[in-house]
Amino acid sequence: MKFSIEQNEGKPGLVPRTDTPENLESPLGAVDTWLVPNNLFYLRNHHAYPAINFENWRLSVGGQIEYSFSLSYQQLLNMPQITIVNNLECAGNKRAFFTPPASGAQWEIGGMGNASWTGVPLSYVLTQAKLLPGVHEILFTGVDSGPRPDTPGNYHFARSMPLKDISMVDPLLALYMNEQILPFKHGFPVRLIVPGWYGMASVKWLSSITALTSEFTGPYQKIDYLYLSKEHDYSRSRPVTTIKVNSVITSPQDQAIIYPGITVIKGIAWAGNTSITQIEVSTDGGVTWAAVSSTSKNPSRFAWVLWEYHWKVYAPGKYTIQVKATDNLGNVQPAKAPWNAKGYGNNCIHAINIHLPKPVRTQS
Amino acid sequence: MKFSIEQNEGKPGLVPRTDTPENLESPLGAVDTWLVPNNLFYLRNHHAYPAINFENWRLSVGGQIEYSFSLSYQQLLNMPQITIVNNLECAGNKRAFFTPPASGAQWEIGGMGNASWTGVPLSYVLTQAKLLPGVHEILFTGVDSGPRPDTPGNYHFARSMPLKDISMVDPLLALYMNEQILPFKHGFPVRLIVPGWYGMASVKWLSSITALTSEFTGPYQKIDYLYLSKEHDYSRSRPVTTIKVNSVITSPQDQAIIYPGITVIKGIAWAGNTSITQIEVSTDGGVTWAAVSSTSKNPSRFAWVLWEYHWKVYAPGKYTIQVKATDNLGNVQPAKAPWNAKGYGNNCIHAINIHLPKPVRTQS
Repeated sequence: MKFSIEQNEGKPGLVPRTDTPENLESPLGAVDTWLVPNNLFYLRNHHAYPAINFENWRLSVGGQIEYSFSLSYQQLLNMPQITIVNNLECAGNKRAFFTPPASGAQWEIGGMGNASWTGVPLSYVLTQAKLLPGVHEILFTGVDSGPRPDTPGNYHFARSMPLKDISMVDPLLALYMNEQILPFKHGFPVRLIVPGWYGMASVKWLSSITALTSEFTGPYQKIDYLYLSKEHDYSRSRPVTTIKVNSVITSPQDQAIIYPGITVIKGIAWAGNTSITQIEVSTDGGVTWAAVSSTSKNPSRFAWVLWEYHWKVYAPGKYTIQVKATDNLGNVQPAKAPWNAKGYGNNCIHAINIHLPKPVRTQS
Repeated sequence: MKFSIEQNEGKPGLVPRTDTPENLESPLGAVDTWLVPNNLFYLRNHHAYPAINFENWRLSVGGQIEYSFSLSYQQLLNMPQITIVNNLECAGNKRAFFTPPASGAQWEIGGMGNASWTGVPLSYVLTQAKLLPGVHEILFTGVDSGPRPDTPGNYHFARSMPLKDISMVDPLLALYMNEQILPFKHGFPVRLIVPGWYGMASVKWLSSITALTSEFTGPYQKIDYLYLSKEHDYSRSRPVTTIKVNSVITSPQDQAIIYPGITVIKGIAWAGNTSITQIEVSTDGGVTWAAVSSTSKNPSRFAWVLWEYHWKVYAPGKYTIQVKATDNLGNVQPAKAPWNAKGYGNNCIHAINIHLPKPVRTQS
């Protein structure tokens, strides 16, 4: 019998949440760091991966502007570029913690990732586009498209942003992720990155930028990504926009068995387009809270911060460990996030249960 | 600025349950097949990975036998070998479904895997060993060792099996996994494979085989891997042994959004050292059950079978899909498995919730 001698070891990898389209969460071991490696960065798709004809690929810029034009990949590469470190977070992250369950992929706590993004400021391209009077918002359309179970027809993933919101964060036409050419699954050739906003705003495989004088009503704008207080009730919806203050314990993991002595509790905290002012940890189920300090060396406005707490524990028992963060507007993470039908924006306090076992004496 | 052009895409991978030691679950996409690839096969460890001195490595055979001896890797390779397809399952698989939660890593439904194992039958080596009269069980010791939080001291992972149990399944000294040299993380150079038994019996990094006339009382035999009806009560414990009848839906995933038309429901079912006689699916939360047929081409006594059900559905709504299997001794999976303090042997019926959305009309 002949055998291959390839050593083929298992390693922690991306955690599937749905197969079609592919939605994968980061393992906690991968987000316990400043920049998440590209191959362990969460993936959130609305459709099957698109086919890109890279030979003839152009980014078109049109709508209510003086003269429409399109940009080749080489033209984009030749434009002025900047790098920002930004934490992308899926609007459905922590959806699994809603009671009753909210519809959609049951993201747990790995639907976010800090990365460095390098590309052309959107403002640079919009300045060249010469918007006509009356332009109110900009539409960003991806190459990816497909059907929806709730409406007939085929739709590209497309999202618009009011100009006033764009000017607050200066989105990027990202060509590189963590100093590598943007990976295909993350939107190659170019992805819009909207710093501080939930991930749906950062359109992948960007194919066109369109200036609009009226409101865009595509399904990813007016069916999805709305906070709905009742299912199917679109009358009092609010759009999902910036990322809420949030935090996660990355180590130990839930249900870990710990040893007598020092247990290092660590994790990350972030606050969209504001900043973190306080991080607190409780080891007694929320009765008392200790302020912990950030261990990040290079904080950046839109990035997450790393934190760490050294906890001495000798008494056997089960412990509930929690973390909560506060942003510079005074927003504090809630114990339970307000329920909404599509399960967005859950920034509830993360809790884990760990166990220091009793000494065991057995009969022999 | 210089960039690497490496394309570094994310892919579904092993799902971490604990970091130290490394315990990783298979993603459902990887178990939806006859043989699980080695790099996506679940990993369950009790200690940090051991250092193996392969140059001087020997498998020693001793205890109550006529003459002790040891075998080199080359000697094992030269012995007669057989191949069996066997589903290994972690005794803690589905532990996350116990209420109240049971202590230990919260395995969900990916702690099992079908693989082909090739190696020397244990019976061949035991025949050469010439057991002395009075030998009652055989002890298998791994190279891996470490402390425990509940008892002072350092312990190798070690498990014994009564001779009468050994003779029922003929364990294998496995040198190959899926026709590749056994990967290090799966126990290279040699792993005991006990067909039909929960995974703890299949000792990795096997270093010695010892014939005993008395009962072995190591902590992995007499503290762990016991069904305990009350926490810390070892007086009426029963040992964890063979794998119970069980099944899993591998597709669609829990909380999937489905389309009007045919939805293919598929999965796997297995029954330890017995065999599967019936697989039933319910799409109405358990009110009615339809018998489904196995699609496996090459069933093998200790392996899992694949099954598939084509379900027509047009009415919008939320649906609970369940699967239950029956073995040839008449055992049927329960809705709720009997609780035990350490959370072993959960073979409860797997249920997922899926959603066919209502057509949406929005205001424009």
